[in-house]
Amino acid sequence: MRCFHFCKLPGRVMGSRLLRFTSVVIIVLLLVAGALTALLPTIKDDKLPNSRREAKTQSQSALDSFTLIMQTYNRTDLLLKLLNHYQAIPHLHKVIVVWNNIGEKTPEEMWNSLGPHPVPVVFKVQTVNRMRNRLQNFPDLETKAVLMMDDDTLVSAHDLAFAFSVWQQFPEHIVGFVPRKHISTPSGVYSYGSFELQNPGFGNGDQYSMVLIGAAFFHSGYLEDFQHQPEAVYALIDETQNCDDIAMNFLVAKHTGKPSGVFVKPVDIRNLEKDTNSGYSGMWHRAEHLLQRSYCVNKLVNIYDGMPLKYSNIMISQFGFPNYANHKNKM
Amino acid sequence: MRCFHFCKLPGRVMGSRLLRFTSVVIIVLLLVAGALTALLPTIKDDKLPNSRREAKTQSQSALDSFTLIMQTYNRTDLLLKLLNHYQAIPHLHKVIVVWNNIGEKTPEEMWNSLGPHPVPVVFKVQTVNRMRNRLQNFPDLETKAVLMMDDDTLVSAHDLAFAFSVWQQFPEHIVGFVPRKHISTPSGVYSYGSFELQNPGFGNGDQYSMVLIGAAFFHSGYLEDFQHQPEAVYALIDETQNCDDIAMNFLVAKHTGKPSGVFVKPVDIRNLEKDTNSGYSGMWHRAEHLLQRSYCVNKLVNIYDGMPLKYSNIMISQFGFPNYANHKNKM
Repeated sequence: MRCFHFCKLPGRVMGSRLLRFTSVVIIVLLLVAGALTALLPTIKDDKLPNSRREAKTQSQSALDSFTLIMQTYNRTDLLLKLLNHYQAIPHLHKVIVVWNNIGEKTPEEMWNSLGPHPVPVVFKVQTVNRMRNRLQNFPDLETKAVLMMDDDTLVSAHDLAFAFSVWQQFPEHIVGFVPRKHISTPSGVYSYGSFELQNPGFGNGDQYSMVLIGAAFFHSGYLEDFQHQPEAVYALIDETQNCDDIAMNFLVAKHTGKPSGVFVKPVDIRNLEKDTNSGYSGMWHRAEHLLQRSYCVNKLVNIYDGMPLKYSNIMISQFGFPNYANHKNKM
Repeated sequence: MRCFHFCKLPGRVMGSRLLRFTSVVIIVLLLVAGALTALLPTIKDDKLPNSRREAKTQSQSALDSFTLIMQTYNRTDLLLKLLNHYQAIPHLHKVIVVWNNIGEKTPEEMWNSLGPHPVPVVFKVQTVNRMRNRLQNFPDLETKAVLMMDDDTLVSAHDLAFAFSVWQQFPEHIVGFVPRKHISTPSGVYSYGSFELQNPGFGNGDQYSMVLIGAAFFHSGYLEDFQHQPEAVYALIDETQNCDDIAMNFLVAKHTGKPSGVFVKPVDIRNLEKDTNSGYSGMWHRAEHLLQRSYCVNKLVNIYDGMPLKYSNIMISQFGFPNYANHKNKM
C-alpha cells in the first residue's frame, strides 16, 4: 500500500476523524510538555552565577579553604557589616554564624533576599546564650581550618589571606592576631595579661603564651577535642561566660607540648564596638573581666593538674607587604 | 717478736745505719715529689677563669650552642674588631676563622697574648684563596649549629641570640638576616635579585627564595652534604669566586623540599666595609657581581636538573623587642 503523509484517505469523513485525532494528540503532547516544564527547577538569571560559584566552592580542597565561625550577641548591625566584608575573603569556604540572640529571629530571610552571596552562610540558632556555643563541633564544618572571629572585629582580607597561609605551615597551632600571656609569681599564683605585664624573663623582650581565638585560625580537629574536656572546664566557662579562649590554648598546648599559638602581626585590625547601634559593648568591658581571666588560668591549672602553656617570642609579618621594602635594615 | 716503730735495735751501729737509710729514703721521696711537681701543668692565676670557662663551654650541649665560622681575606683589622664582638655572643661554643690570606701569618700569637678569651678560636690556614673554603666540614666543629658570618658584617648580640632560638625551631632551614630571590622570566631564564626586582607574583607582597649564608645559622650537617655535590658545583664556585651561598640554598631546598631559608628581620646589622684600613672592599662591589649570581642560578638549575628553590614570605621578628609594644596594632 502506497502511503504518504499519514495516508491520504478517501473521502471527507476519514479526513475529519484524522484531523480530530491529530489535534487531540497535539493537545495532549502540549499538556504533557507544559507539566514537565512546570516541574523543572526555576532557572532564574541571577541564580546562574550562584550555581557556578557553588560548584567552584565545593571543589575547593578541604585543605585549601577555611570556615569562618562567628558568634554573635546583640550586635546584628555589626554582624551584617562584617559579613559583607568576610564573605569575600579569599579561600573562604563557608560562614557559620552562631546565633546567641535567644528567641530572636535570625536575619536569614534578609540575607537571602540580598543574595547571591559568594559563599554559603548558615545561621545556627542557639537555645542558651553561652560563650562556648561557638566551640561546638558543627556538622556544617567541611574544612580542616577554622577562622574564628569576634563579631566586633574587622581584620583586613590581606591579613587574613596571609595568616591562613601561615596556618597552613603551622596547622597544629592557633595562628592569630591577638597575643596574650600568663606570668608566674613567687607565690605560685598565675596572672593573666598583655604586654603591660612584666616580661616572663626568658632573655630579651617579651613573650606570649596564648593567642586568642577571637581572631585566629586553628584546626577544626580541636573543636572535636574540645568536646572531650573535663566537665569542670565547661562549668568554668559557663560560670564566667569568659575564658573559652584560654581553655582552648590550654588544650592546644597540652596536645602539642609546644607554644599553643603563633602570632601574626596584623597590618589592619579594627574594633568596631563603637559603631554599633545596639549600645552593647562587649564582655571585655566588664570590671571583672581581666581578674576573671587570671582566675581562669589558675582554675585551669588545677583542672589540668599543671601549667601546659609555653612561651614564644616569634612574631610573623608578611615579607614585602604592604611596603615592598619592609624588610630593609641598616646595612 | 714484739716490734714497735721500726723495731728498736740494740747498739749504736744499727742506729746510724737506720738513720742513713731513712735519710736516703726521705731525700729520694723529695726528689720524686719535686719531679712530679715540675711535670704538672702550670696553674697561673689568669688561667683559672679560663679553665672554669672551658669546663663550662665543654658542658654546653651540642644543641644549645653554635660555632661561628668566619672566612677572612685582606681585612684583618675588621676581623679582629668583629672577633672582639662575636666572641662574647651568648651560646657561642667556638670560633673557626678560615684564613684566606695565603702565605700570611695568622694573628694567633697576638690573639693569645690578649687572652683570656671567652671561647676557643681556631685559625684554619688555607693553601688556596677560595670562596668555598668556608664550606669545609671542619673537624673542629662540635656543635649542630653553625653561624656563618662575613668578615665585614656586624650583627648585634640580641639579633644573634634571637635568630639562634629561631634556628632551634627550624633546624633544617638556613635562618638568617639577608633574604634574596630568583624570578622566572617568560624565556625560562632565571634572574637573581632582591626586593627591587618584581615580585614573583604569588599573591600580595614580595617573596624570598634564598637566605644568604654570610649572616645566617644552619645545620652543620649541610657542610657534610656540601662535600658530596656534583663537581660542576665546585667548578662554578671556583670559576666565579662567588655563589657558594646560592649553591647552599639549592642544596638545602633540594634536601627539604621546602623554602631553604627563614628570614629573621635584624634590628641592628651593619656593614663595616668602609671601616677597613686595607682598602679592600669586598667581592660584591665587582661590576659583574649580580650578573654572575644570575648566571649561577641558571647554571645550578642545569647542574641539578631543575629549580629546587621555593618561595616564602614569612618574616620573623622578636616579640616585644627592642620596643616592648612592638606588636601593637590599630584596634
